This record gives sequence, C-alpha cells and structure tokens, in this order.
Amino acid sequence: MRVVLVAVVSLDGCLTRHDDGGVAWASEDDKSHFSSTLATCDSSIVGSATYLAARDHMLANLHARRRRMVMTRTPDCYADDSRPGLLEFISESPAALIDRLRADGSSRCALLGGGQIYSAFLADGLVDEMIITIEPKIFGTGTRLAGDTIPIDPSFRLDEVSRLGDSTILARYLRR
Amino acid sequence: MRVVLVAVVSLDGCLTRHDDGGVAWASEDDKSHFSSTLATCDSSIVGSATYLAARDHMLANLHARRRRMVMTRTPDCYADDSRPGLLEFISESPAALIDRLRADGSSRCALLGGGQIYSAFLADGLVDEMIITIEPKIFGTGTRLAGDTIPIDPSFRLDEVSRLGDSTILARYLRR
Repeated sequence: MRVVLVAVVSLDGCLTRHDDGGVAWASEDDKSHFSSTLATCDSSIVGSATYLAARDHMLANLHARRRRMVMTRTPDCYADDSRPGLLEFISESPAALIDRLRADGSSRCALLGGGQIYSAFLADGLVDEMIITIEPKIFGTGTRLAGDTIPIDPSFRLDEVSRLGDSTILARYLRR
Repeated sequence: MRVVLVAVVSLDGCLTRHDDGGVAWASEDDKSHFSSTLATCDSSIVGSATYLAARDHMLANLHARRRRMVMTRTPDCYADDSRPGLLEFISESPAALIDRLRADGSSRCALLGGGQIYSAFLADGLVDEMIITIEPKIFGTGTRLAGDTIPIDPSFRLDEVSRLGDSTILARYLRR
C-alpha cells in the first residue's frame, strides 16, 4: 500500500489562513485537483480536528470506494458518526493504522492532515509520496504543514512539477 | 525601483533547518541561482541577524555594482564594518529605506531576509516581485519565511514556474 500525503499550502507553509480553520482560501484549481486525486485512493486518514472542520461535507459524501479513518484519542465520543467500512474512528499509532489498512486490502491511502497528522507520519517514515499544491499566498500566521513542534527532516525527490490554472503550483514528490 | 524578495524555503515554509542559522541546507542548484539573481540587482537589504550569519562572506565580497543595506536598531554598533556606498547600517522604516534607495538611483533592490524583514516589507505592500526557490524538504521547526507573529495576506500571481536541477522548484511571482 502507498501512503500519499495530499496538502495545499501557502508559500510560507501554512495550511490555514491565520486562525481560520479549513481551506476555503484555496483556489478552485486546487479544489478540483484535490477531488481527482482523492478518486485515485481507496482509503484516507485525517485527524479529529480536520474531521470536525469537514464533518458535514464528509458525512454527506461517504461511499464504498474509499474507507475513511479518523485518528482520535477518544473514538467512543464519535460512536454516533461511525459507519463501519465507510467512516471509522480509531486510536492507534500511525504504523499500526497503516498495517491495518494494508492487511484489509487497501492499495493507496490519502493522508489528508492536519499538521500534527502529517508530521507524525513523516517523522515515522510512513509517507511514500506527497502531492502538494502551492498557492500564491503568504499568511505569516496559520497552522503549519508539519506542525511546528517536532523537528523532522524526511528526504524526498521532486518527481514532477506543473502549473495548475492561473497561479497554483502542483508538485509531486517521492520518498528517496 | 523594483523590490524583489528572494528566498529559499522548505515545503513547510522554513528558511532555516530547525535552529541552525544560514542556508547551508539549500541545494547547489539554489546557490548558483541565488548568485545569478543577485547579479541583476544594484542594491540589497538584509536584517542584522541575517547580516551576522553571513558577515564574513559579505565583507569578503563587497563591490560597487551592488549597494548593501543592513537594517538594525543600533547602526552605531556596526561602525567598524560600515563602507559608505558599499555596506551601510541604517535604522529606518521599510518605506523610508525604499525611498532613499530610489532617490539615490537604484533600479532593482533584492530583499534577502530574514523572516522579520520579509514580513515587514510584505505587510507594508512594498514587495513588487518574489523569486522563491522551494526545496524538497520538510523541517517541522525553523525560522519562517514571513515571521510567525504578523498576520499578513498580500496578493501575488504566479508569473513562471520551472524546475531547477534535480529536485528544486523555482517560482517567480508578481504583485497583483
């Protein structure tokens, strides 16, 4: 199974514009690219903060083609939202979650954030590929791509870079 | 006079790898690009922390083709390093410094950091162009491209994007 980190960032590495949650600031070009990237994945992982920010949209768009996992220390608190095989809430280490998805037959898993989730998987060497959309923005403050508390230094190489629409960069990296 | 922000960043918007000062982490592709970009500018601006990190190199490479300005609250402390017309230490607002360079005939000024300098000029709307090199790195912690205390949101459009050597992205942005 390949783990694919998918993220949209500002030029200063922010996932959010200042304290505003979500990615409403991202371009339409990014949003349509994000949907087509997700369509190539049969599982996905988010943290609980990202889930809560996107909850309504996620609940309205569940389907059997992609199994969605939410990492949380308190799975019991989400029992009402749980849909086995479609939307599951788990308290496991990144490696244990990857092992479980692989054992269950997933072949391509999208890692969708937020910053703490990205940094935990990167720190543990579990990311095979990154698809990063870079918007022409500088926010100064905001949630960071890889948290801002864990020093990490994973090694990637640029596989391809292209322009997405008017002012967005789309880059794909592979683990060295 | 055009003000050109020149920076090398990691994918998570760091100027430095963790607490290590300087840009020793950047690729050789970035370093040769940086030199050729600087050669197109007849003035440059850095903050005092960036000056101190690069002091030996800067003092050994002064030349009349580029006037170097260092922003500091304590110009008197640098009297021994000062070389009028070549290397000057000033305590002025970003706008006043730009006005002074323009009045003295500069046509293209490179803004070279660090993060507090970048964010101060961006917040005041003084940056006309940005030449950003993006390395295939994620550091988690480090000095940020635009500080991390001032919320800003300047508007740029992507003029061009290309690949620089093996794994580096070179992007040029123009103020909208």
